[in-house]
Amino acid sequence: MDGDTTSNRGFASDNASGAHPAVIEAIAAVNEGHVPAYGNDAETARLQELARAEFGPEARIFPTLNGTGTNVLALRAIAPPHRAVISAETAHISIDETAAPEAIAGLKLLGVSTPDGKLTPELAATRLADPADLPHVPWPAVVSISQPTELGTVYRPEEIAALARFAAGNDLVLQMDGARIFNAAASLGSGLAGASTDHGVDVLSLGANKNGTVFGEAVLFARPELAEGFGILHKGTLQLPAKARFVSAQLNALLDDGLGVRIADQANGVAAGLAERLAELDGVEIAQTVEVNIVFFSMPLAPARAFPETLAPNRPLLFELGDHGLIRLVASWDSDLADVDHLVGQAAEALGASRA
Amino acid sequence: MDGDTTSNRGFASDNASGAHPAVIEAIAAVNEGHVPAYGNDAETARLQELARAEFGPEARIFPTLNGTGTNVLALRAIAPPHRAVISAETAHISIDETAAPEAIAGLKLLGVSTPDGKLTPELAATRLADPADLPHVPWPAVVSISQPTELGTVYRPEEIAALARFAAGNDLVLQMDGARIFNAAASLGSGLAGASTDHGVDVLSLGANKNGTVFGEAVLFARPELAEGFGILHKGTLQLPAKARFVSAQLNALLDDGLGVRIADQANGVAAGLAERLAELDGVEIAQTVEVNIVFFSMPLAPARAFPETLAPNRPLLFELGDHGLIRLVASWDSDLADVDHLVGQAAEALGASRA
Amino acid sequence: MDGDTTSNRGFASDNASGAHPAVIEAIAAVNEGHVPAYGNDAETARLQELARAEFGPEARIFPTLNGTGTNVLALRAIAPPHRAVISAETAHISIDETAAPEAIAGLKLLGVSTPDGKLTPELAATRLADPADLPHVPWPAVVSISQPTELGTVYRPEEIAALARFAAGNDLVLQMDGARIFNAAASLGSGLAGASTDHGVDVLSLGANKNGTVFGEAVLFARPELAEGFGILHKGTLQLPAKARFVSAQLNALLDDGLGVRIADQANGVAAGLAERLAELDGVEIAQTVEVNIVFFSMPLAPARAFPETLAPNRPLLFELGDHGLIRLVASWDSDLADVDHLVGQAAEALGASRA
Amino acid sequence: MDGDTTSNRGFASDNASGAHPAVIEAIAAVNEGHVPAYGNDAETARLQELARAEFGPEARIFPTLNGTGTNVLALRAIAPPHRAVISAETAHISIDETAAPEAIAGLKLLGVSTPDGKLTPELAATRLADPADLPHVPWPAVVSISQPTELGTVYRPEEIAALARFAAGNDLVLQMDGARIFNAAASLGSGLAGASTDHGVDVLSLGANKNGTVFGEAVLFARPELAEGFGILHKGTLQLPAKARFVSAQLNALLDDGLGVRIADQANGVAAGLAERLAELDGVEIAQTVEVNIVFFSMPLAPARAFPETLAPNRPLLFELGDHGLIRLVASWDSDLADVDHLVGQAAEALGASRA
Repeated sequence: MDGDTTSNRGFASDNASGAHPAVIEAIAAVNEGHVPAYGNDAETARLQELARAEFGPEARIFPTLNGTGTNVLALRAIAPPHRAVISAETAHISIDETAAPEAIAGLKLLGVSTPDGKLTPELAATRLADPADLPHVPWPAVVSISQPTELGTVYRPEEIAALARFAAGNDLVLQMDGARIFNAAASLGSGLAGASTDHGVDVLSLGANKNGTVFGEAVLFARPELAEGFGILHKGTLQLPAKARFVSAQLNALLDDGLGVRIADQANGVAAGLAERLAELDGVEIAQTVEVNIVFFSMPLAPARAFPETLAPNRPLLFELGDHGLIRLVASWDSDLADVDHLVGQAAEALGASRA
Repeated sequence: MDGDTTSNRGFASDNASGAHPAVIEAIAAVNEGHVPAYGNDAETARLQELARAEFGPEARIFPTLNGTGTNVLALRAIAPPHRAVISAETAHISIDETAAPEAIAGLKLLGVSTPDGKLTPELAATRLADPADLPHVPWPAVVSISQPTELGTVYRPEEIAALARFAAGNDLVLQMDGARIFNAAASLGSGLAGASTDHGVDVLSLGANKNGTVFGEAVLFARPELAEGFGILHKGTLQLPAKARFVSAQLNALLDDGLGVRIADQANGVAAGLAERLAELDGVEIAQTVEVNIVFFSMPLAPARAFPETLAPNRPLLFELGDHGLIRLVASWDSDLADVDHLVGQAAEALGASRA
Repeated sequence: MDGDTTSNRGFASDNASGAHPAVIEAIAAVNEGHVPAYGNDAETARLQELARAEFGPEARIFPTLNGTGTNVLALRAIAPPHRAVISAETAHISIDETAAPEAIAGLKLLGVSTPDGKLTPELAATRLADPADLPHVPWPAVVSISQPTELGTVYRPEEIAALARFAAGNDLVLQMDGARIFNAAASLGSGLAGASTDHGVDVLSLGANKNGTVFGEAVLFARPELAEGFGILHKGTLQLPAKARFVSAQLNALLDDGLGVRIADQANGVAAGLAERLAELDGVEIAQTVEVNIVFFSMPLAPARAFPETLAPNRPLLFELGDHGLIRLVASWDSDLADVDHLVGQAAEALGASRA
Repeated sequence: MDGDTTSNRGFASDNASGAHPAVIEAIAAVNEGHVPAYGNDAETARLQELARAEFGPEARIFPTLNGTGTNVLALRAIAPPHRAVISAETAHISIDETAAPEAIAGLKLLGVSTPDGKLTPELAATRLADPADLPHVPWPAVVSISQPTELGTVYRPEEIAALARFAAGNDLVLQMDGARIFNAAASLGSGLAGASTDHGVDVLSLGANKNGTVFGEAVLFARPELAEGFGILHKGTLQLPAKARFVSAQLNALLDDGLGVRIADQANGVAAGLAERLAELDGVEIAQTVEVNIVFFSMPLAPARAFPETLAPNRPLLFELGDHGLIRLVASWDSDLADVDHLVGQAAEALGASRA
């Protein structure tokens, strides 16, 4: 492979990518004069409108600051301390948020082992408790699913609907961690609501940062009664932006005329292409069907350790599976075919070197 | 069986039993005059002495109020919020304490599936995290084991020692939930220290209530430096008894000349006898070797549901295993052979009726 | 004074006193056979009945373990994290509970300076917030009063009623810290309800430990809807006694035929007598009208420091006021005239010595 | 005044202003290619360098997301739950952060009444506790001061130094809420360190959002040992930016060649001019010497209510003082003389109308 044209874009994480130009423009465009702080501004009002257009007239949206904060805030809004949250064992809230749901929201996470990162009513039911065991056992209040999952799989509408029925039937609220909701929507060929609230999600952590914002996410409630008293938690959970117009402007840029889904679709496409190209290499095994912008693959251990520079600084391998290493690659809104070429070249080189 | 001589003692739980007469006497004996509150009294000083005689001169003991409080307090003393605790999936702190370790101590519990309720270094190691994943993954600070386990199994000295080496080697504190530590000691034929701190336990939740007290437990630290700053947590975690002499007197009654281990041994013996007798019944299967005062057995579902009166009011069956029901019976310090006769009679009657 | 007849009862604190004989008897009396744990027993059912007889048919009572725990639990039951509690600056929950209301319940205490430890609607109103300042300012959810106050003063029925109207009119719950509620009732010549719920208190921390129990208090709700979902908090806040019958038996002993109020009345009377006798000494000034079992008085600094043995070990003086020392004395249910003689003798001796 | 030239800049709050053009440019400039997330990027390394240049080689800086989060995070880093924080009663952490220091950090705030928003060692000493009262009284671990204060006053170097000596002498950490630290530095004619760490501040909440950023603040430790274990809290307290380069770039824009202090100085100057002009109006009283960008003044109640459009939407008056209304105005980095003219015109008009 040609080392001269080193791309400065890799596949370590979509958090490694920057912001879409339209997002930067949107920030600059609302940087005009003084407006009320804390969300009482016209741009945030417009966000509310766009959210209702997207998610229905009952929806309520609140701009927030980062992903972990958004999930913890969403959970606090729907469950008091000492209750439990049923989620996949692989859920981000369980393994990647420094026990913030436990320490800040006071909740217990009940993990379920899944084949593909996806909960089903049957799997979730294994963590229901027997009322006879109250008040001793942690009592579920929430089912939390990730769309897409950490394994890159996407819940189909009917799968969400089944979980929503399960949740409603067991007095649980259905929360969705949508850190990559734009990618899921693109994958489903739907809008954001089609990947979430249309099928029964009650509360959505609407992720935007991985999909081209500078910062900023949102909590979206499907119905206003779920948002009651939310103002205090919004501020108290450290997720209320002072200059909220700047979060809203970024979200609006993504929601307006479908930009967010469009650029997520581009990332999904690059990931699909990347998987296809990697699969052609001798020794490479695609570990999970690619449905969004995430590719899991394995190769023998020695070459797997040989292209760290494009991946997370401390984390070339996700983990070892016997004599193979599992690697996760994530395409971003700005990834392109040149990046694929570069990565595949590195992989081929590593494989070749290890054979030599 | 003869319904006339209904025993008022069952095998629902050792929490269902009352207090040993010596404990009541001890309470009455210290109920004399005024003494400083909050542990600055002679009886609590004597508890400190007895604890040092039992656990070594470095030990520090603090009387507490109940079991969940004692565990949460012990955990708070050794791990700040956002850290993680490795324990068996079946651990009481994980499944039976209403998410108090999460909500009050801010800790994440990392459960490990075990064959017999016992952690091993190998099993615990599966929940260690990779420093490369900091600060995102919940970072273990504690290994928590139960002595005996919720499955009635007992850690041997060398098993504790191995976990202690594992803990020390991974910068973890080894905490022991000793809600039934007297029963474990009796089972091992050792003192309390021989079942815990002698082999490397750093912090012990010293349970007494299940073994004949009116109320009252203790947190015991193997070394004084672990107890630094503990006073504030003791009070703040709602576990500081105002009239501490009354907790200390009860603990002293159990510690003094081995009463606690002796009566626990009696409970263990009754449980062993009960298991032996039950095993003779057609259709009954002992599910776990009986090492302390807990008996797990199964029988067909119909008869399993037929003797609720001796068991927990809402909880005759622990759970169903296909067409069998698993039942847990717990002997208490005051259980005797008449109780065994009564229970076995009930079981036989239930089995007979279901065959008729 | 004659040192020969050293009393072993002092006036350091009612927490220094022991348990009433009837309480010890009650514990022994229910120490019979096995009963369901965690409050599902006949003695706790009887407590429920006695509470309804005392506080009305709508009342619900829950036995608890200690005073700080009872207050924190009561507050958690009526206010979610991030809300505020209006109380007197001198309130026990604010100055004497190691920030447990903050750290465990997540509440902010808004203290009000008072002349006598008593809130009034006017004083409490100074800590109301302007809705225009939401969600930034801590938003009151509770008015908390102590009956009697830490200064030994007692709310009259009409004063409670005025605060209840204030609370209701401002969407606040009225909680009462009744650590010495028996003494307040005795002072008012009423029952417990007459000192609390009859006049609009919603939730009462019913204290018993200072008035002759070994341990054990209770949370009492005036109406069942306030107790909704309480079971989880009861356990999760570390205040659910496993062998609840032993708490209930003690409370029942005090509630049954008025024993609790009667012995509190005795303590109040001794305190009144003590104040009268102290006031006769040259240099002594009674600092607060004595309404319950607490006496505040001052004397010159030198003698004030001269009778530490009867007082709290580290705390002879409450604080210094210029060249005088303020001292707090507390009579207990078992205090008598001999104790008064002894204490007054010590005071006289100290005053005399300082003049010599 | 001429209504035609309505300025779109007011004096409601510096949170109402937007971002400085150099900040927007800095965001755009680092929006290039992929870089490691969570602060492992070159721009954040440069922030670290600039911070050391500014605050000394021992300093450690961590980019954060918003003001309340920054304060709560700083406090969590230096004090465990159940400890207390001594601050002015008017401190932002006490009255304007929705009890987040209590609910998230588990701390009790001990407020001190001050004439001008400034703590002194003497004032702070009134909230120290007596070790004899441990573990019951909330035990101070932190002295928290605001630079400038909420009343717009500025601590002089020697005043900070005196508080630092007081803190060190009482085993307390000195934390500074520097939400407007740039304005304080400008007022003192010093750098940021000259307004904080040079004189003994241990931990600084370095505010930037009010002074021209889109979002983003930082926690700055004067010495590395204070930052030990901070990574977990940084993430767990919901304040770790995923795309940290964008926060760092903004802070760097302000730190680089003094831009931040320069634009804060401009705001201070406008505020001074505004106060001077207002003072000339009949009926207007300047309530506090203007040291930074905040002006407090009073005028009769009727006109005080007559120019709400330039102020916070729900909050024209800060509060009423008898027949006068107290008003707070805040100049921003982009405020200018035209804004002053406009505001003074509105005030004059309101005063005139009320006289007519």
